[in-house]
Amino acid sequence: MKDPRNIAVLGVTGYTGVELAKLLLRHPEVRHCTFYVRDTQGFHCLSQLVPRLRGSGAAPLRALALDAVTSGGAGTAFLATPPDVSAEFAPQLLDGGLRVIDLSGAFRFSAAETFCSWYKLPAPHAARLGEAVYGLPELSADRIRAANLVANPGCYATSVILALRPLSEARLIDCTKNVVCDSKSGATGAGKEPRPDLHFVEVHENFRAYNLFSHRHTPEILEHTGLDESQLLFTTHLLPLARGILSTIYATLAIPQTPASIENLYREFYAGKPLVRIWPAGKLPEIQHVANTNFCDIGFALDAAGKRLILVSCLDNLGKGAAGQAIQNFNLMIGVQEQAGLL
Amino acid sequence: MKDPRNIAVLGVTGYTGVELAKLLLRHPEVRHCTFYVRDTQGFHCLSQLVPRLRGSGAAPLRALALDAVTSGGAGTAFLATPPDVSAEFAPQLLDGGLRVIDLSGAFRFSAAETFCSWYKLPAPHAARLGEAVYGLPELSADRIRAANLVANPGCYATSVILALRPLSEARLIDCTKNVVCDSKSGATGAGKEPRPDLHFVEVHENFRAYNLFSHRHTPEILEHTGLDESQLLFTTHLLPLARGILSTIYATLAIPQTPASIENLYREFYAGKPLVRIWPAGKLPEIQHVANTNFCDIGFALDAAGKRLILVSCLDNLGKGAAGQAIQNFNLMIGVQEQAGLL
Amino acid sequence: MKDPRNIAVLGVTGYTGVELAKLLLRHPEVRHCTFYVRDTQGFHCLSQLVPRLRGSGAAPLRALALDAVTSGGAGTAFLATPPDVSAEFAPQLLDGGLRVIDLSGAFRFSAAETFCSWYKLPAPHAARLGEAVYGLPELSADRIRAANLVANPGCYATSVILALRPLSEARLIDCTKNVVCDSKSGATGAGKEPRPDLHFVEVHENFRAYNLFSHRHTPEILEHTGLDESQLLFTTHLLPLARGILSTIYATLAIPQTPASIENLYREFYAGKPLVRIWPAGKLPEIQHVANTNFCDIGFALDAAGKRLILVSCLDNLGKGAAGQAIQNFNLMIGVQEQAGLL
Amino acid sequence: MKDPRNIAVLGVTGYTGVELAKLLLRHPEVRHCTFYVRDTQGFHCLSQLVPRLRGSGAAPLRALALDAVTSGGAGTAFLATPPDVSAEFAPQLLDGGLRVIDLSGAFRFSAAETFCSWYKLPAPHAARLGEAVYGLPELSADRIRAANLVANPGCYATSVILALRPLSEARLIDCTKNVVCDSKSGATGAGKEPRPDLHFVEVHENFRAYNLFSHRHTPEILEHTGLDESQLLFTTHLLPLARGILSTIYATLAIPQTPASIENLYREFYAGKPLVRIWPAGKLPEIQHVANTNFCDIGFALDAAGKRLILVSCLDNLGKGAAGQAIQNFNLMIGVQEQAGLL
Repeated sequence: MKDPRNIAVLGVTGYTGVELAKLLLRHPEVRHCTFYVRDTQGFHCLSQLVPRLRGSGAAPLRALALDAVTSGGAGTAFLATPPDVSAEFAPQLLDGGLRVIDLSGAFRFSAAETFCSWYKLPAPHAARLGEAVYGLPELSADRIRAANLVANPGCYATSVILALRPLSEARLIDCTKNVVCDSKSGATGAGKEPRPDLHFVEVHENFRAYNLFSHRHTPEILEHTGLDESQLLFTTHLLPLARGILSTIYATLAIPQTPASIENLYREFYAGKPLVRIWPAGKLPEIQHVANTNFCDIGFALDAAGKRLILVSCLDNLGKGAAGQAIQNFNLMIGVQEQAGLL
Repeated sequence: MKDPRNIAVLGVTGYTGVELAKLLLRHPEVRHCTFYVRDTQGFHCLSQLVPRLRGSGAAPLRALALDAVTSGGAGTAFLATPPDVSAEFAPQLLDGGLRVIDLSGAFRFSAAETFCSWYKLPAPHAARLGEAVYGLPELSADRIRAANLVANPGCYATSVILALRPLSEARLIDCTKNVVCDSKSGATGAGKEPRPDLHFVEVHENFRAYNLFSHRHTPEILEHTGLDESQLLFTTHLLPLARGILSTIYATLAIPQTPASIENLYREFYAGKPLVRIWPAGKLPEIQHVANTNFCDIGFALDAAGKRLILVSCLDNLGKGAAGQAIQNFNLMIGVQEQAGLL
Repeated sequence: MKDPRNIAVLGVTGYTGVELAKLLLRHPEVRHCTFYVRDTQGFHCLSQLVPRLRGSGAAPLRALALDAVTSGGAGTAFLATPPDVSAEFAPQLLDGGLRVIDLSGAFRFSAAETFCSWYKLPAPHAARLGEAVYGLPELSADRIRAANLVANPGCYATSVILALRPLSEARLIDCTKNVVCDSKSGATGAGKEPRPDLHFVEVHENFRAYNLFSHRHTPEILEHTGLDESQLLFTTHLLPLARGILSTIYATLAIPQTPASIENLYREFYAGKPLVRIWPAGKLPEIQHVANTNFCDIGFALDAAGKRLILVSCLDNLGKGAAGQAIQNFNLMIGVQEQAGLL
Repeated sequence: MKDPRNIAVLGVTGYTGVELAKLLLRHPEVRHCTFYVRDTQGFHCLSQLVPRLRGSGAAPLRALALDAVTSGGAGTAFLATPPDVSAEFAPQLLDGGLRVIDLSGAFRFSAAETFCSWYKLPAPHAARLGEAVYGLPELSADRIRAANLVANPGCYATSVILALRPLSEARLIDCTKNVVCDSKSGATGAGKEPRPDLHFVEVHENFRAYNLFSHRHTPEILEHTGLDESQLLFTTHLLPLARGILSTIYATLAIPQTPASIENLYREFYAGKPLVRIWPAGKLPEIQHVANTNFCDIGFALDAAGKRLILVSCLDNLGKGAAGQAIQNFNLMIGVQEQAGLL
């Protein structure tokens, strides 16, 4: 009998996997948690692999085998695996009766060809893709509660979509002007694999733009803001810090607004959403406000004419941008408060 | 008899002043260099005030008195002083027969009211303002050579103007769309004065936007790119690093271009300008490429339609953005190669 | 009727105070928590003063008045105040029936004159000093459980004492040789007050030694390791990071040991102590292993002769070095597991 | 006819090689400079390989072939190669009539077996080893001037030897006590090769000790300070910064001293040495004072009894610790001022 509070985590060697482990090990609603990796290095305990987790509870570490996962008592699987691996594993886990939260891009798009063209990978299982729910809890809580397969959003995409969605739903964006999303992320977002351009000396006291016109989070943003590709300019940069994303977003408004009307729009849109914090007009969030939290903070400035709006949206790329949001989705799926274990 | 290679530096306690000292002390064309500060703290030698300059040559330190400056043998004065102080000193130094390079904003604008409204200070001396030359050597070398008063540009403004000017002169910017300049600077740009928000712990592992719609470098950018205020969105951010500015600039083109035509436009525009480096299409400059140099590096990416252009412009805010550019202006004024002492 | 799980925190503007707030607000055994500051800036809620705490629970903020504290329902007071203020407040709070955990140095020494000479302040209340317990839970859990006044140890002192105590109790230190404690701390340890030497630019890409032969934590180390002042060399350095202390400690052993015997000594000494983690011979802890935790990690290397021992002791200066340890003391005082709310 | 001012640099892909290139390209006494690498990647110009050197002068890049080096006009070769490569190349270059400055450890030790046992490599050419001069200019300027093969010292070793040598020559070190050298270095010292432990996220906001009792610079320190291995404790740590070493050194004095007598000892020892700066009693050097310079700064604190001395020695590991010191040796070899091109 599968208990959704018994957890299997597949892939725990990256930064997201470790963050997920940290959050799950202190989550008050989790019963058991087993971690699966390709290579256990002979260890039986997660804390042997991740020294900073020693003393935080003894979580078993197992060699990754889907049979073992589906035949165990776990009712929920978190996939902290690359998209091609997730595309392969998720259908089998679902067939085995588990509910799945996938942190990769494999099931994020309504159209398989979007995934194929941006990720240069084969299409994921069509039926499973069809039932996947894009796991942005502030936008789709009810569908997430009922979902068997949740596609956890991209970190940059989360910061941009949460900032733009109130505007786009209110049809306030002037479609004849560009929307510019200038996003900056800390280095945990680039993964743990050693690379020449991620060497300490190459990131520290440095800053650079990357993947112009080609970042994989672009189609997520388009799909969930309703913007047209020709209208959106989305650029990513690497900050010399470990954790955090700040997106500076420039939109032109179709109808002039006041600071109060903008603040009000956002407050109403996110009323009852405990993990989005709207900043009062004239104050802006910073990465430090959200680092090591699961909040997304949104602030803004409006020009004197009330036409040009600059939004500043911040979150922790490992928190609300990845592992924390996965937990938030899990909370909805098991029917507890969405912020459980996240404050 | 005043020798323009005998230098007086007024104000040497900030980061810009120290950088200026470092560059002047090893400049092959400088004869004597005397440093003036409000409070000498009883020292007679610059290196007593700035320990990292010990052993780099004995430069005299003097209490600031304009009489002493004008009656000495110095023919060139660098003002590394706040704008109100520069506004007061520059006319007297000019009257005393010195040529002046002012690093503040006091003489940067053709209209005094622009200065007054953005700096909240009284108008500088009208006649002196009239003869001041905006010291961007790549745009006005001949006027700088002949100038008695050079207004050294702002650091952000330099990075943005050098990137946009080839486009604006070629009338390639689509005026119906916004031009977004999303600029990021290291902390030396914020000055040396201790402030709660510049405490190490508040900048490190942090990133924030500031002065939205209100940064003082905005009118410089408008004046030297020909953009209309309603068209320009210029935003500044604080990076957790010491030196460097990277501006990401988004423009829509009036006529579609190819990567080759853009690269060619920039290469031709900056032909013979040794301190601007144009990057080939598909490669982008980073802050580390320009830190501790006097270069401004410009790269770009163009969308498939050839209509939306993203420029990346980098420089060192203390180098090409301040002290180094002041030396470059000085080089032009004394008739030597503009890069002398700067490579 | 005073409930020890109702908390008053006096002083919450520094880094330690904010960390204390963060830990208390999510502590499962805390009932109510009220925060007192000199200047509430007109706010009524802690999260208005500390934006990163918004959404983490509504904690009241009050103007500091001892009457209000003692007449309220709080049974435990945390003092995150400077030593002179703690020296004044603690006796009154104790008289008012509260139990007090003081994070300053005011009550850390058995002899008042030690405090006076190292802190240049008047002696604290003699009787209250006499009943104060030095709050290092691994060494004095029983006395802390019964205490009314706990003096929370210094951050550097905690890292050094926990590392040396097993050796000194086993009389293994060769008293004819020096014990060198070379300690390095992140910048939160230096306080939040803006200072020229704590400006981002002066700490970043820098490293310096400070307070040689004069650091205030020296007498704590002497008192709790039994070392003689002439034998101990204790030096502190400022690291360009926010949180964490690493002490490298050099001792000569009176009797040759093996790596196994040293590891065994430490494991036995800290058996049953959940917040000290001993590293196996040949592996060393790093600051990242303990940052944002309440652990003290201890590792070592022994020379081939078994005579010269190098200990590496790490902790988070705001966690086990300050706020976290205060919570650990509080846990003992209210009779719950010492790690409650700290994992 | 070989001109010693015509330079060949072998190996320019690491941080030391690039620093060497930067210094050589602006050195006033250098005529031609050719750079040799294993893999030119099809480039012909150094600046194509190292973008930050663009515009600093066109230096040729060649595929590494010893024949080409010896048959060209270069009279001096710098080896920025690993020790086994240097051990192979240096004799052939010397046979070809070049003078050689080797930055590796291959020729640093008077006894070949020291090299073999610490580097686990075969012994270098015995005769060549016999004529090699340890290139610490403050200690052996005359021998360096006449040398054909200079072994450029290790970065840590330079910081420690320069600090201890005045004491050891004056026979002031109490040999019954340990000398502890607690050294900390920035990450450029660990090399440019991507490694998991040098990933930005693993170094930033972290600090760790490494190679306890086993660092390769130990035998250099022993050989040039006259200390006995049983007396020296030398420990290295990795700082979260790019450039700089600070060594904190603890010695017990055989005869009590005053601060003035210590300061005097050091000033006299380094009189006429322009690149060692002695700090006055009571002031300590920091890494920022020496970063991007070729200085070694030495300060100290003495206990009240005049017996226990703490030295603080700082340098830039790429400057005085490697490339800068190599240039200083080159200057001596060609008969110009030792600081030429280094201020």
